[in-house]
Amino acid sequence: MEPGIPFMASRGDYEGSRAAIFGVPMDFTTSFRPGTRHGPQRIRQVSVGIEEYSLHQDRDLREITFCDLGDVAVAYGNVPVTLSRVQAVADGVLADDKLPVVLGGEHLISLPVIGAAQARYPGLAVLHFDAHADLRDDYLGEAHSHATVMRRVADRIGGRNLYQYGIRSGSRDEREYAERHTNFHPYEVLPALERDLPALEGRPVYVSVDIDVLDPAYAPGTGTPEPGGVSSRELLLAVEKLAGLQVVGFDLVEVSPGYDPSERTAVAAAAVIREALLAVVK
Amino acid sequence: MEPGIPFMASRGDYEGSRAAIFGVPMDFTTSFRPGTRHGPQRIRQVSVGIEEYSLHQDRDLREITFCDLGDVAVAYGNVPVTLSRVQAVADGVLADDKLPVVLGGEHLISLPVIGAAQARYPGLAVLHFDAHADLRDDYLGEAHSHATVMRRVADRIGGRNLYQYGIRSGSRDEREYAERHTNFHPYEVLPALERDLPALEGRPVYVSVDIDVLDPAYAPGTGTPEPGGVSSRELLLAVEKLAGLQVVGFDLVEVSPGYDPSERTAVAAAAVIREALLAVVK
Amino acid sequence: MEPGIPFMASRGDYEGSRAAIFGVPMDFTTSFRPGTRHGPQRIRQVSVGIEEYSLHQDRDLREITFCDLGDVAVAYGNVPVTLSRVQAVADGVLADDKLPVVLGGEHLISLPVIGAAQARYPGLAVLHFDAHADLRDDYLGEAHSHATVMRRVADRIGGRNLYQYGIRSGSRDEREYAERHTNFHPYEVLPALERDLPALEGRPVYVSVDIDVLDPAYAPGTGTPEPGGVSSRELLLAVEKLAGLQVVGFDLVEVSPGYDPSERTAVAAAAVIREALLAVVK
Amino acid sequence: MEPGIPFMASRGDYEGSRAAIFGVPMDFTTSFRPGTRHGPQRIRQVSVGIEEYSLHQDRDLREITFCDLGDVAVAYGNVPVTLSRVQAVADGVLADDKLPVVLGGEHLISLPVIGAAQARYPGLAVLHFDAHADLRDDYLGEAHSHATVMRRVADRIGGRNLYQYGIRSGSRDEREYAERHTNFHPYEVLPALERDLPALEGRPVYVSVDIDVLDPAYAPGTGTPEPGGVSSRELLLAVEKLAGLQVVGFDLVEVSPGYDPSERTAVAAAAVIREALLAVVK
Amino acid sequence: MEPGIPFMASRGDYEGSRAAIFGVPMDFTTSFRPGTRHGPQRIRQVSVGIEEYSLHQDRDLREITFCDLGDVAVAYGNVPVTLSRVQAVADGVLADDKLPVVLGGEHLISLPVIGAAQARYPGLAVLHFDAHADLRDDYLGEAHSHATVMRRVADRIGGRNLYQYGIRSGSRDEREYAERHTNFHPYEVLPALERDLPALEGRPVYVSVDIDVLDPAYAPGTGTPEPGGVSSRELLLAVEKLAGLQVVGFDLVEVSPGYDPSERTAVAAAAVIREALLAVVK
Amino acid sequence: MEPGIPFMASRGDYEGSRAAIFGVPMDFTTSFRPGTRHGPQRIRQVSVGIEEYSLHQDRDLREITFCDLGDVAVAYGNVPVTLSRVQAVADGVLADDKLPVVLGGEHLISLPVIGAAQARYPGLAVLHFDAHADLRDDYLGEAHSHATVMRRVADRIGGRNLYQYGIRSGSRDEREYAERHTNFHPYEVLPALERDLPALEGRPVYVSVDIDVLDPAYAPGTGTPEPGGVSSRELLLAVEKLAGLQVVGFDLVEVSPGYDPSERTAVAAAAVIREALLAVVK
Repeated sequence: MEPGIPFMASRGDYEGSRAAIFGVPMDFTTSFRPGTRHGPQRIRQVSVGIEEYSLHQDRDLREITFCDLGDVAVAYGNVPVTLSRVQAVADGVLADDKLPVVLGGEHLISLPVIGAAQARYPGLAVLHFDAHADLRDDYLGEAHSHATVMRRVADRIGGRNLYQYGIRSGSRDEREYAERHTNFHPYEVLPALERDLPALEGRPVYVSVDIDVLDPAYAPGTGTPEPGGVSSRELLLAVEKLAGLQVVGFDLVEVSPGYDPSERTAVAAAAVIREALLAVVK
Repeated sequence: MEPGIPFMASRGDYEGSRAAIFGVPMDFTTSFRPGTRHGPQRIRQVSVGIEEYSLHQDRDLREITFCDLGDVAVAYGNVPVTLSRVQAVADGVLADDKLPVVLGGEHLISLPVIGAAQARYPGLAVLHFDAHADLRDDYLGEAHSHATVMRRVADRIGGRNLYQYGIRSGSRDEREYAERHTNFHPYEVLPALERDLPALEGRPVYVSVDIDVLDPAYAPGTGTPEPGGVSSRELLLAVEKLAGLQVVGFDLVEVSPGYDPSERTAVAAAAVIREALLAVVK
Repeated sequence: MEPGIPFMASRGDYEGSRAAIFGVPMDFTTSFRPGTRHGPQRIRQVSVGIEEYSLHQDRDLREITFCDLGDVAVAYGNVPVTLSRVQAVADGVLADDKLPVVLGGEHLISLPVIGAAQARYPGLAVLHFDAHADLRDDYLGEAHSHATVMRRVADRIGGRNLYQYGIRSGSRDEREYAERHTNFHPYEVLPALERDLPALEGRPVYVSVDIDVLDPAYAPGTGTPEPGGVSSRELLLAVEKLAGLQVVGFDLVEVSPGYDPSERTAVAAAAVIREALLAVVK
Repeated sequence: MEPGIPFMASRGDYEGSRAAIFGVPMDFTTSFRPGTRHGPQRIRQVSVGIEEYSLHQDRDLREITFCDLGDVAVAYGNVPVTLSRVQAVADGVLADDKLPVVLGGEHLISLPVIGAAQARYPGLAVLHFDAHADLRDDYLGEAHSHATVMRRVADRIGGRNLYQYGIRSGSRDEREYAERHTNFHPYEVLPALERDLPALEGRPVYVSVDIDVLDPAYAPGTGTPEPGGVSSRELLLAVEKLAGLQVVGFDLVEVSPGYDPSERTAVAAAAVIREALLAVVK
Repeated sequence: MEPGIPFMASRGDYEGSRAAIFGVPMDFTTSFRPGTRHGPQRIRQVSVGIEEYSLHQDRDLREITFCDLGDVAVAYGNVPVTLSRVQAVADGVLADDKLPVVLGGEHLISLPVIGAAQARYPGLAVLHFDAHADLRDDYLGEAHSHATVMRRVADRIGGRNLYQYGIRSGSRDEREYAERHTNFHPYEVLPALERDLPALEGRPVYVSVDIDVLDPAYAPGTGTPEPGGVSSRELLLAVEKLAGLQVVGFDLVEVSPGYDPSERTAVAAAAVIREALLAVVK
Repeated sequence: MEPGIPFMASRGDYEGSRAAIFGVPMDFTTSFRPGTRHGPQRIRQVSVGIEEYSLHQDRDLREITFCDLGDVAVAYGNVPVTLSRVQAVADGVLADDKLPVVLGGEHLISLPVIGAAQARYPGLAVLHFDAHADLRDDYLGEAHSHATVMRRVADRIGGRNLYQYGIRSGSRDEREYAERHTNFHPYEVLPALERDLPALEGRPVYVSVDIDVLDPAYAPGTGTPEPGGVSSRELLLAVEKLAGLQVVGFDLVEVSPGYDPSERTAVAAAAVIREALLAVVK
């Protein structure tokens, strides 16, 4: 692991922590605009500028236990080696009965974490917030890519256990696959999640947030901006709803700071992570 | 014409195409912040990053025929010569019974295209989406300017054939002119268009979209940002409504990439053009 | 005072003006990202790109009298000296029965202006639009800071005379103080203001707008962006409501142009000031 | 004329001034990257950050008399009208026996100023510092363009009265023209000027500096950067040499601030102008 | 191959061309700052802003034959597949007795091109212009990386056939390897090349230019800027010296446009390629 | 002290270290363009991208002992409190017989460090590398400012013990003071230092480097860029010369990353610090 600035208030040691943050600065399969490798560190840097206390939930990060392990050392240009390192870290965190909270990096990094979570929590459901369906069977000939990651997840956990929110871009093949196999909610986020909550109660749940589920107005610093998304307020409200579920893993991916001189994308990411920690770490 | 990167999926030849895209990289009359000359190429560049398929309409650009002619060679600093070249290209496209789809550049470039369309389609109605009324009689002494373009259009087609949506800035003279002469819908876009649709059915319609009809949150890369606009989702939904009309020409103007490091303005423009092509090319 | 480009249309002389604009380019107590010292000049520069006429209110800046005094000469690194100079200018403007309209700079500069206003108008109410409560008793050991400014205001005018809108960030202490002492409206802006209007009628009112009350999508150029805010349209509508009140002072603070290459934050600020001038200067 | 921030220390009134600065924010014939219209104001803004005193010359701007008239009001998109306005201002300044010091804007604006200078000072020599020869007979069909300006100058004053320094880009036609007709010094600046000084003594001299004579490392904020240029130190030393000549007019053009977030291009321009004023205003 | 804007003046067809340009937009093994994938297209875009004619050499690109094949389709995240595609294209170009001129992309892409060149031209010498020695045996465990590329080249062609210019950064191991095995010229470029020219005459020569051999003042748009480099003028003069050699392949790598808003890095790269084409294509 | 990313290779503990790095993120007295508070962290961040080994000196940071203490906690807007904290840290480091290596921040932070060094090492000489003389007696009424810092140093150690290199900007008063009291070397750096070395041998020496001693071409990310400076190569060579002196303290100030998207200013600063550590830590 590579050390660095920790996420705000995460001064705890690993032993006593209920949740463990780690970053994966990988963006090798990105086809359009690279730069998400800088996401984890930028999210941590800007996190010191927002409050540990959430007015939304009336809870404070200083009241829960979590730590920041730093970044997984990626093997530049080598996808399989990097993903296996990510899986090893996730396996360890889960084996110690802690919640992994992962900062991307491109979306493909979710795959080994979800794999580790499913190994430990059979019957896992995955909540996927994204502008893109990420359901291609292959992308430019590669089976493992940011554009295929949720297809690979569906291969493992079964499409009926995959819940997709806010999708507004995909191919016709992806749409047809989604309509047949997954719980597919194009455009919608908060209302759709609220309808799904009863079915999710009591199940182990993994949450994967691609920051581009937000409209580019709210999150311009991302690799493939897609107009027509939701506001950061709607996403924050959705994250609060996780408090009623048994969340066993969480990731936030695709923050690419170079495209956002205002840094508001990283700030929004930090706020989402704060709200998620406050909602799911008891 | 100047060659370059084509708009996504526009690999067709001119002969077999129902629509022909061309750019006009002119920004000479811009008074505040130049740079829209870079709009056409940037829109094309980012277009490769979005899908040819539209989840909104369940249609795919690969299912229709269109081509990209490149950019009109502008005469730098010479407005009359440049506009006459634009008109010649538009005349040719319309004479070949194709739909011109024009990428600006500043808004003044719409004038010769609309002139060409009206010559071919008498009784033309113009739908104008914009933050600014563009109805001045002259601007700093010039009769032909980005700020006078719709007044010149009204001179030609008659104000009652001009429909204006989303306007939130103008002088008192412009407001009075609009209220007396045009179909003037300040602030509103989608609801107003839906009310107008019945009156527009069966008529030849030209559509001119100034990207600044969007709020600067959604389209920061433009010359004269004006707060209080609509979201990209609302504009995309409005463009889908064009499917029920007989659209004979379309332009999208005033993308100025230099003010938007996230490139989301150009991406939104590319998405609007994709939706327009899918809606109006049968 | 330092001369410079004046705010649009403010060509009047001081004697004949009902309102006097001045800037305070101070950002010394800013802890996260400095740069608001460039706010006043940037707001003025972009102001020439928007209309003097407001479509919203059907009024024109050329119909009212106001002047632009330029910027207060700040003492770099010396907070007490700078604040005393601000107070001296504000005292003079108020003594001449004019409305001070102040461009920040960081939020701490509101304190001496509000102090001067209260000295002249006992029973003053303060309307505070902001993402942050600014109610800390001290900040990193300093009693006078951008993060404590409204606590100091409450100390002077009494918490019950402080009305706070749009707040979405603070510590638990601030929340408890606000709930006990001030008129505290988290998240809400326009609806809450409308409910408060009857109670405010007839009272002298000071208005302090931190531009970060807007969501960072609408105002990315600010020091501490906080997701979940309101749109510029909502803020403009709120400012129009001031027409029914007896406003005796106004400030707009925390525009930090360096984080916003689109300049839309400064444009939004200029539009808010235009609407405020048109609403409150009779 | 448009008012604005004045160049540093230029508080003098016109009557008592030996030199008069004015800007021409025109960039309509620019073919590659517009933006020089923002040059005059940016040069003035950054000028407040450098000293009035020159260590190089041991002279101070406060010891000479000059004023800043602001910017000529350009007719956007209309080159002939704009140039005739520039000529009118230059004629007036020269008629009042003052030195015009002009801030561009694109290089074409030098043409009317040089024309005015030649009308008043027959036998004028022009010193031209530039990366580009600017000697085309026409450019994309236009006879008046930034790329033809020195050919037009040579048409008027005779090529043998044109001295060109630092040129490192041109067509073969331009090179052949230069070698036959002008005093052509490719690559060289200071050494070539020193060799020419004896021949220039006693003659009326006009100096035109295109900032791109500097290498783009020193002046990245310009429209057509060309590698292989001189350093700012060499240019400053060359400007000091003007002290021995009878300079009757001076311009500095092609600063395009949008390409230089460091602002050092505008700072270098301000320093060059300071040194020129100190060298030539007695 | 992916089509796009061609390099300036490269309108020729492949059959009749002596040289063939192609790009490799790969940056997967970049460890510090990605973005060189955007290099090839940006170099082409800015190339239209400089002259086809070289004042340095008195030659014109329109007098030689070359074509632009576009970019090799890279397999995102898959290094071996991408490199094999590059090698296939290079093999084909060389088999047709043409000169490959390659635009990077990261430096690792030189490896398959040099491999192809050596297969066709036994006894190949490689001239390597770079700030970094690129001689590590492995980098973070990977044998194929931008930091190991010249070690792999030395493995193939023998270190005594590798000539390195301008190196100013490396590990002690690299320095010791270089001093024992390669022709190692730290800091120096033009003088060292001039000394080596006699030994290189008559041999087949491949030239690999990492743009960071220039000081970051001249080429800020690169992944690993290293202070203390040479000027663009010195590099251009060095490239002219290639006219006396039998150059059989050429690449220019590591242009990362996102770090250079002035675009002068890409302009310098385009000028270097123009000079190289003019020097080596007879 | 505030923790953060450490400077490269500085993994040592304090006890065993010969040198101790610390940052002072203060920029309150900056009058022109703030932002040097971000200098210390940015220098550390980019430091991981350059080698620990110096080709220049054939030495490696891993062969010497040093540590990174993080940043002094500044009191925002409170200059006296912040400076006293800096002095306390410097006193402690010096009392433990270690070399303080300080990262700014604005230049005023050098004052307490030099004060601490002089208290411990009477007869201290100060080497001052800067574009600006920093010798004003007061600046805008303040005696303690970035523009007065070396005057205050001269007050303490005596002007004859102050050696100034590379100065190219100042007022006439500063020049006269310098010529009478200090060892003043305008424009020159390396040659002047070499002449002074014999006189400095054996004395305790403190070195203060304002990064703007470099030309803005090499260091654009600074608050007050001044054309006409030296290259990074010359500065690096000058720093190597320190190996022959008894250096007891070192600082590098005025890196303002926001003005340099290429980050080469911070990279140059990191390289200077590496060379300084290698030269002076035995």
